[in-house]
Amino acid sequence: MPEVRLNQVTGEWVIIATERARRPEEFAQARERKALPRFSPTCPFCPGHDEAVPGVTFEVADGAGAWLVRSVPNKYSALMPDGDTDRHDLGLKTFLSGVGRHEVIIETPAHDVPPALLPLGMLQHVLDAYRHRFVAFYKDPRVEHVVIFKNHGEAAGTSLEHPHSQVVGMPVVPGQVRRRIEDALRYYGDLGACLYCRLLGEELADGVRVVAENASFVAFVPYAALSPFHLWIFPRRHSADFGAIRDSELADLAAVLRDTLRRLHFGLDDPAYNVVIRSLSPEEGAVKYFHWYLSLVPRVSKAAGFELGTGMFINTALPEASAAFLRNVTLPEA
Amino acid sequence: MPEVRLNQVTGEWVIIATERARRPEEFAQARERKALPRFSPTCPFCPGHDEAVPGVTFEVADGAGAWLVRSVPNKYSALMPDGDTDRHDLGLKTFLSGVGRHEVIIETPAHDVPPALLPLGMLQHVLDAYRHRFVAFYKDPRVEHVVIFKNHGEAAGTSLEHPHSQVVGMPVVPGQVRRRIEDALRYYGDLGACLYCRLLGEELADGVRVVAENASFVAFVPYAALSPFHLWIFPRRHSADFGAIRDSELADLAAVLRDTLRRLHFGLDDPAYNVVIRSLSPEEGAVKYFHWYLSLVPRVSKAAGFELGTGMFINTALPEASAAFLRNVTLPEA
Repeated sequence: MPEVRLNQVTGEWVIIATERARRPEEFAQARERKALPRFSPTCPFCPGHDEAVPGVTFEVADGAGAWLVRSVPNKYSALMPDGDTDRHDLGLKTFLSGVGRHEVIIETPAHDVPPALLPLGMLQHVLDAYRHRFVAFYKDPRVEHVVIFKNHGEAAGTSLEHPHSQVVGMPVVPGQVRRRIEDALRYYGDLGACLYCRLLGEELADGVRVVAENASFVAFVPYAALSPFHLWIFPRRHSADFGAIRDSELADLAAVLRDTLRRLHFGLDDPAYNVVIRSLSPEEGAVKYFHWYLSLVPRVSKAAGFELGTGMFINTALPEASAAFLRNVTLPEA
Repeated sequence: MPEVRLNQVTGEWVIIATERARRPEEFAQARERKALPRFSPTCPFCPGHDEAVPGVTFEVADGAGAWLVRSVPNKYSALMPDGDTDRHDLGLKTFLSGVGRHEVIIETPAHDVPPALLPLGMLQHVLDAYRHRFVAFYKDPRVEHVVIFKNHGEAAGTSLEHPHSQVVGMPVVPGQVRRRIEDALRYYGDLGACLYCRLLGEELADGVRVVAENASFVAFVPYAALSPFHLWIFPRRHSADFGAIRDSELADLAAVLRDTLRRLHFGLDDPAYNVVIRSLSPEEGAVKYFHWYLSLVPRVSKAAGFELGTGMFINTALPEASAAFLRNVTLPEA
């Protein structure tokens, strides 16, 4: 019998359609694979192409001064840095100028090394760059919300194959984010507890959907996962602000994220995926009702008219089975 | 300068990134095209394969008794017809059985004729089948919400090439739908008017985003369209219930929809698209604050981490330019 589960964080129902389910290993996508070169002479993100990435905003370098991770303005920015953010209203037409910040984080000089195969220290540098740009963007008073995300693989919407993430600072709070804040605030008002802390406690107590954990972070397939192998990584310490993550926590996040990415890479043959960090701003960092987290969505199924017309998802894998599969992946030596 | 526009119906901001914009005709997708046969011996929806589609629930036939349009249960239904819809709560784990209805509407006996190329009378039969199944599904007291949708083309998520639509009757109201009802109710409470009627009035007054219209319906690219060529078709008569559409209105909807689909087909070389009918239930049909409509989303861009992490969209075409392009498409004789 299929089941309809409520995702309390998104406020949305998910149909767990087990009758349509495939075995976990069937989600490994038999797709054409092109071996990438270590260095591409035409790639703007490969070393030696500094003219293609003007205005480096942050960089981690090795002992010899060569960069390991860097952030640069997005050449095809969706938003422009100059201008005001005054709202305008013409009847139902509400608008403002597209003012904001949009940068790319180049995760490694190596054209062919995805995050799952980065050494732990390198992944930590990437997260350090995330934190640095996140905090820097919020210093611009016109920036109301910052989102960090990554598209890995063509099915996840990437257009450049060199491993990179993106950071966008927007002049508005997305309606979706505002509604989640409202829901979390109501939960806190009604029950006097952080919805996210409660949910993490239940996931740890149940255990069956947990994939990896350490002192600071827990990776699990949520009870109402929106798609097969959908993962959330929650910090154990309550905080609404990713920018306030401590150095020791950053190292722990790198470890859990790397372990999880390796399970996806080796268990499902390098699927396409999106990563998103969902956080409020530093000035909201201390609120008791919201909790930042990282979401990891393998793109093994396609959203179509049903999802578009309802906001709901149909998940063809039981979340407990997705988690068990990932826990049991045999990993090569790290 | 890019612009950020508020979509008052979805409650979400859209970035109109004109700096990234392509010319409208560039959205025509140079994709491989496989000529389809008129009849496919292996297609379950082609005539003569009645054993593959047991339990026809509705049918329109020609004078000689051959079917023109029919609806059948979905063999891979996401929901099951039997069972109760009692809610269960285990802490934060809220769930119910996946009880509901899921049918396929086969739009034509011809394997190779998409809706854009159907004669007007045939498209009217398809909409008639929509209405029939919509009304029938709501007779089941366990059905809380019905969505009608269509996926055209692989990029829009279809898996079977024979032209068909789907109808799903769910045991829950999607959270997204409930939030839109709440927003529309608040608008009505504050301003004493239907948000959708107001919006239609503004679109007609502006005129620049209107693509097609007749006595009962108006097709337009919304002010804050979420993607290039995104279209809404609104009924002029206020009603929250698609099922209450009158016969004359059904004919008018077929005419406007056909005209719009033809503009997409001939102007953009048959792009993939989704169609969704957004409506409340018959018992809510008379409410003053909600208005049913049809949404048509060509899939000419891909949602990625940004959309997933914010709920917002980046539209790389100016809605006014999308509408002008569609209005100016040269159509062959109908």
